[in-house]
Amino acid sequence: MSSRKAYINVDLGEGYGNYSCGPDEHLIPMIDHANVACGFHAGDPLHMQQAVRQCKERGIKVGAHPGLPDVQGFGRREMKLSPEEHTANIIYQVGALRGFLDAEGVELNHVKPHGILYGMMCRDAEVCRAVYAGVPRGIKVFGLAGTCQETVAAEMGLEFVAEFYGDVKYDDDGRLVIDRVKKPWRAEDVKRHVRQQLQDSAVTSSVSGKVVPLPTKDYAISVCCHSDSPGCLEIVTATREVVDEYNKANGFS
Amino acid sequence: MSSRKAYINVDLGEGYGNYSCGPDEHLIPMIDHANVACGFHAGDPLHMQQAVRQCKERGIKVGAHPGLPDVQGFGRREMKLSPEEHTANIIYQVGALRGFLDAEGVELNHVKPHGILYGMMCRDAEVCRAVYAGVPRGIKVFGLAGTCQETVAAEMGLEFVAEFYGDVKYDDDGRLVIDRVKKPWRAEDVKRHVRQQLQDSAVTSSVSGKVVPLPTKDYAISVCCHSDSPGCLEIVTATREVVDEYNKANGFS
Amino acid sequence: MSSRKAYINVDLGEGYGNYSCGPDEHLIPMIDHANVACGFHAGDPLHMQQAVRQCKERGIKVGAHPGLPDVQGFGRREMKLSPEEHTANIIYQVGALRGFLDAEGVELNHVKPHGILYGMMCRDAEVCRAVYAGVPRGIKVFGLAGTCQETVAAEMGLEFVAEFYGDVKYDDDGRLVIDRVKKPWRAEDVKRHVRQQLQDSAVTSSVSGKVVPLPTKDYAISVCCHSDSPGCLEIVTATREVVDEYNKANGFS
Amino acid sequence: MSSRKAYINVDLGEGYGNYSCGPDEHLIPMIDHANVACGFHAGDPLHMQQAVRQCKERGIKVGAHPGLPDVQGFGRREMKLSPEEHTANIIYQVGALRGFLDAEGVELNHVKPHGILYGMMCRDAEVCRAVYAGVPRGIKVFGLAGTCQETVAAEMGLEFVAEFYGDVKYDDDGRLVIDRVKKPWRAEDVKRHVRQQLQDSAVTSSVSGKVVPLPTKDYAISVCCHSDSPGCLEIVTATREVVDEYNKANGFS
Repeated sequence: MSSRKAYINVDLGEGYGNYSCGPDEHLIPMIDHANVACGFHAGDPLHMQQAVRQCKERGIKVGAHPGLPDVQGFGRREMKLSPEEHTANIIYQVGALRGFLDAEGVELNHVKPHGILYGMMCRDAEVCRAVYAGVPRGIKVFGLAGTCQETVAAEMGLEFVAEFYGDVKYDDDGRLVIDRVKKPWRAEDVKRHVRQQLQDSAVTSSVSGKVVPLPTKDYAISVCCHSDSPGCLEIVTATREVVDEYNKANGFS
Repeated sequence: MSSRKAYINVDLGEGYGNYSCGPDEHLIPMIDHANVACGFHAGDPLHMQQAVRQCKERGIKVGAHPGLPDVQGFGRREMKLSPEEHTANIIYQVGALRGFLDAEGVELNHVKPHGILYGMMCRDAEVCRAVYAGVPRGIKVFGLAGTCQETVAAEMGLEFVAEFYGDVKYDDDGRLVIDRVKKPWRAEDVKRHVRQQLQDSAVTSSVSGKVVPLPTKDYAISVCCHSDSPGCLEIVTATREVVDEYNKANGFS
Repeated sequence: MSSRKAYINVDLGEGYGNYSCGPDEHLIPMIDHANVACGFHAGDPLHMQQAVRQCKERGIKVGAHPGLPDVQGFGRREMKLSPEEHTANIIYQVGALRGFLDAEGVELNHVKPHGILYGMMCRDAEVCRAVYAGVPRGIKVFGLAGTCQETVAAEMGLEFVAEFYGDVKYDDDGRLVIDRVKKPWRAEDVKRHVRQQLQDSAVTSSVSGKVVPLPTKDYAISVCCHSDSPGCLEIVTATREVVDEYNKANGFS
Repeated sequence: MSSRKAYINVDLGEGYGNYSCGPDEHLIPMIDHANVACGFHAGDPLHMQQAVRQCKERGIKVGAHPGLPDVQGFGRREMKLSPEEHTANIIYQVGALRGFLDAEGVELNHVKPHGILYGMMCRDAEVCRAVYAGVPRGIKVFGLAGTCQETVAAEMGLEFVAEFYGDVKYDDDGRLVIDRVKKPWRAEDVKRHVRQQLQDSAVTSSVSGKVVPLPTKDYAISVCCHSDSPGCLEIVTATREVVDEYNKANGFS
């Protein structure tokens, strides 16, 4: 029996001008937390505004999803910035999103960095500190337990929400394995993957096949899925099913 | 005798990466209001943060200086955006600046659009409404009296501050004459130009030489100078002298 | 009986980083001329390289498709640039595409400006001259007969190819009517539209319903379809059918 | 006695829109080779065109100076790109510059990558191969002997020109020491620094003070100075003096 309810978060608002990304409007009814792109890796002002409004309509909590300043690379190409640059980039992007939230009377719920910046923070405490230094006081951060993200959040007094992943594999160290070109997931594989993480706080490594612990302590839990994964509607549907089943079994309605 | 004290505003934080713009640190001690670039026409996060901190140190009031999304054109090339794009662009940029202000515990004082966007708002009420729709409630707008900026601000219930210009000429309609390549001003010409505006609420047209009224009603007054004008330190020094002399003559210390 | 064979051109390579645009690989086998985006409104180096290679494989002629410097607006937001900026922008973009063509041993066939730049050239001879001044000697330009594009091309000694449009409507002056959000076309409507243009050198105005002449003199003819139109594969298939039928009727195999 | 004449190269055309960089017009008369920015780290079309024209007027040889796609970071922030991205980025940028060279009837002399990309190529043969794969056949590359740049150029059959540096220090391995904020050089220090490299094929390490060999075999030699170094006119003047003295001593006029 767990004492924690599990939630689902998805990245939204990742279109840019005429380019669209995921099927935001169909995903929103199935999720709990939206990570809205802030313009540096994706998401121009109109896409951000639309995402915020869609979330407001459905009562979905909204977090900021800041990324590296690289639309062409979709925030997935590592860039070496100074700590000062990282901090200022986060302040800028979170502030920009807050502009839309304020205009709609919606609270900022959390900050979850995007793409390779998230990965850099898992491995590099200095990058992590620089990014977290840009998070406004009182705002939660979503991240990967067992990495610098967890320890630095604790060190800096930030409220940490531990993430599991519905559509990303892990290696033997419990780190995410990012494919440059995303491969499709079968719904039953997503379910098994999410169920294992929620029930066992563990995952089967995609590298060696061995079971790797993913200790998440008492942190609140949110399972992340990606709106740009092929078949994302099926992935989120499958994840929702397992999360609901888990919550019900643990006495959460 | 005027019942209004006059102030000086200058655009700051208009560097971009390795590129610097005006001598911000030398201008700040001489001014009252800073318009800080917000990243669309100039001003990346580090430059914005530095400008906010410099203003805070000196107790200068900070406003947002949003522009068109065009760093290469420095926000001086007209672009036809939809009203929705204009509004979202302003919300985004003002929010981003507010991120830095919040982090430093500084209030947002006003919004003053930049460059050609300012000019478009003078002539086109629809653009003006779209821009003002992105200004947070309770924040002042700086603009040119006698143009759409004034009438739309009134229509939308925004507090309006009327601007005079220390280093820009006017035409016969009291509109600004923008040279693509800025020409230097002699200090004595700046003084005569500012004195005429403050004392007579009028200006000598650079086109015809005739004196054109610049009625500013009871609006608060701020005289704008530009940090990228050739000889800007001399221009601001001259403007400061005339503004101080005007304020003293009207009983303001 | 016409003495001219008709061709089909389509804009390709209009993805950007992770964002994709049209189904280039399925369109290429059905067309004669590709207009490859050059990075300013769409098309980063990898997308351009891929488009050039796909065209080479199928023996499709490649032209440059330069646009305004505005990825966020997809080159569809009017910008006021100086003539010098227009010319330099064209030289830059055509040169960049030529880099890929040279690397693959493919000739540059033509230049066709993109989006709102194309529209600005139809109405404004100065913009048209500035753009054409950046086209390398000996390269054809694709454009709309009866507009500044035709007259300026003649004035500057450029070889002109007259375009018809498979998926764009016309007004009473024979100018294109661009919808901000593209509406789907039925295949039979496309066929009727293209057939009318090819056989009658005329089009039914979408504004008034009256038949408007589209005189194309002796210019070579290429019918343009758009890879980002909804249902573009059906549109191009329908256009191909009518173009083939027209060519056969006129003795071209 | 050396059998090789020495030359001087400087990066030019590194302005961007309203932002200017070095005093190009004063540097050009003192140099032999210009490395013209290509738009990714600096240099928009107008600045590139102007740099090419200024070089043509003075008969200065022009090379391409491609950089990472990061104007905000001026190409000085390391980015992890795929080899395919590096190659396509070089083809794009060199092609764009060639557009201006073709328009002016000037030959492309060489390619010299900019900033951190140059540094990445010194250490990483894979990056170096990817970049050189984008250099058109028959074009020289400028680089640092004793690094991957030299060995990969040899492996790929590219003509290599060995560079010395007038305003950059070296470490114990003969690698460049890049300060984030550039410090001024005294003219006499520049002269000693350049003289030591030219006469002794060696340099005094700024780290340990020991003399480090810089073997340049039979490669042609070009000494690089930077147009954005503080006091660049004095640096180039001092370098010119030493290079002329060296050439004269070796029988080159």
